[in-house]
Amino acid sequence: MSKFGGIEAGGSKFVCAVGSGPDDLDSTEIPTTTPPETVQHVLEFFGSRPPVEAVGIGSFGPIDPDPQSATFGFITSTPKRAWRNFDLAAPIRAALGAKVAFDTDVNAAACGEFRWGAGRGLHTFLYLTVGTGIGGGGMVNGRLLHGRTHPEMGHLRVPHDLARDPFPGNCPYHGDCLEGLAAAPAIQARWGKPPHALPAEHEAWDLEADYLALGVANLTLSLSPQRVILGGGVMRREQLYPLVRAKVSSLLNGYVEAPEIVPSQLGARAGVLGAIALATAI
Amino acid sequence: MSKFGGIEAGGSKFVCAVGSGPDDLDSTEIPTTTPPETVQHVLEFFGSRPPVEAVGIGSFGPIDPDPQSATFGFITSTPKRAWRNFDLAAPIRAALGAKVAFDTDVNAAACGEFRWGAGRGLHTFLYLTVGTGIGGGGMVNGRLLHGRTHPEMGHLRVPHDLARDPFPGNCPYHGDCLEGLAAAPAIQARWGKPPHALPAEHEAWDLEADYLALGVANLTLSLSPQRVILGGGVMRREQLYPLVRAKVSSLLNGYVEAPEIVPSQLGARAGVLGAIALATAI
Repeated sequence: MSKFGGIEAGGSKFVCAVGSGPDDLDSTEIPTTTPPETVQHVLEFFGSRPPVEAVGIGSFGPIDPDPQSATFGFITSTPKRAWRNFDLAAPIRAALGAKVAFDTDVNAAACGEFRWGAGRGLHTFLYLTVGTGIGGGGMVNGRLLHGRTHPEMGHLRVPHDLARDPFPGNCPYHGDCLEGLAAAPAIQARWGKPPHALPAEHEAWDLEADYLALGVANLTLSLSPQRVILGGGVMRREQLYPLVRAKVSSLLNGYVEAPEIVPSQLGARAGVLGAIALATAI
Repeated sequence: MSKFGGIEAGGSKFVCAVGSGPDDLDSTEIPTTTPPETVQHVLEFFGSRPPVEAVGIGSFGPIDPDPQSATFGFITSTPKRAWRNFDLAAPIRAALGAKVAFDTDVNAAACGEFRWGAGRGLHTFLYLTVGTGIGGGGMVNGRLLHGRTHPEMGHLRVPHDLARDPFPGNCPYHGDCLEGLAAAPAIQARWGKPPHALPAEHEAWDLEADYLALGVANLTLSLSPQRVILGGGVMRREQLYPLVRAKVSSLLNGYVEAPEIVPSQLGARAGVLGAIALATAI
């Protein structure tokens, strides 16, 4: 069976893999340090494995995923300064002599869920990750959503009731956007503890579900997805799913039907499997 | 040249036309009354004109635009009771013996702008109308956006500062959604005068631009459109365009580039020309 390479390029770690799908995956994790050092470790991994037909990269961003663009394959305006305007695809393409598919981490995960997980058989769906940041990707009309560059669904502006939640939000760009209110660092800053340390009965979860529901409702009104897949570290708190479903229905109030809201089926492997899926689709 | 039929089915009037494009359009307006009476007048119009190859309908909604569905061609959960669950496409198809394309009024307008107006050459763009309601349609990856049914962009939830704007919103489904805060009836309810009666220096316009910018910014973060076309009666107030552009840029704050924000090029004819465009594309 042909082998493909997959790279989930994250802000804290890179996950690299060689394989062909969920049942054939040889992967490793590399800490994200400087660009040259990180890329060197990535190339060492692939150099020690069988050759691959193509490599898929699902990257943190913002990025340039347009193959027609001069900066295709670049990480662009990321807050991580060392990685800003860094050409991630080129050194990998050059060293491995393979075609490179390059997209956002969340579009890669959506592609993985479409191929092997919770997105199978759908033409229009979203994948949202709720973790150290909030990001969203997906397919519309059977193709990965890019538009002008790519969406940044985590930065949606949502109603914020300062009387109920005086936390001002901690997005460096937008303050109290969705990510600034509901990603893991916001939860930690608001309550003084990371999400995993908050008990199930803590009021944090009802508030978290309110914000996530506002995000999902707005994305439903914008895109009318058949399904919304929620993944990422914060969503390991399974009590959030029924809460978010109920709140989305309440927000839409019967005007439009709520989409199905489901967990990722690929879980922590969604990103790297998605990168493999991107590679198989070049 | 082949003739096509177009019907812009609106809540207060139906615009019917026979033609092939902006330079060949014979149109009339019919008041929206009961479904049987309105459809009778529509059929009288087409009966008095040359035969058409196909008819496009761009309708108020929510509607069912899925050709595979048993209720394709129906207006579904509209607040207008007499029109709820009404099969609009069938009597027209039967009487005219022509194929019928059926989509939302805003997707039709987007299709018209794509063919002859401000959407030419684009693959991903939005058309928003701001009038008696707020609605949005558009294309993603070169195809009209439907998703599960169709978007309802006017009903996005946006931040609402009650200290600055105590008006509670007047959407019967959602209160202070975008439409409930920024459509013409909201402007009239808040300020006691309809939009056209408010002078250019009235504070209404800065507030209106704030809400529209929140909507456009959220749609940009969700869909990454290349361009957003703003039409509808409220947007005849041209001072809104530079205000909305500046506020969208401010909201996005450099994290992603703002899309171009431009007026409709087809103006009041966008809907009916779009319906003609839908018909030509069956």
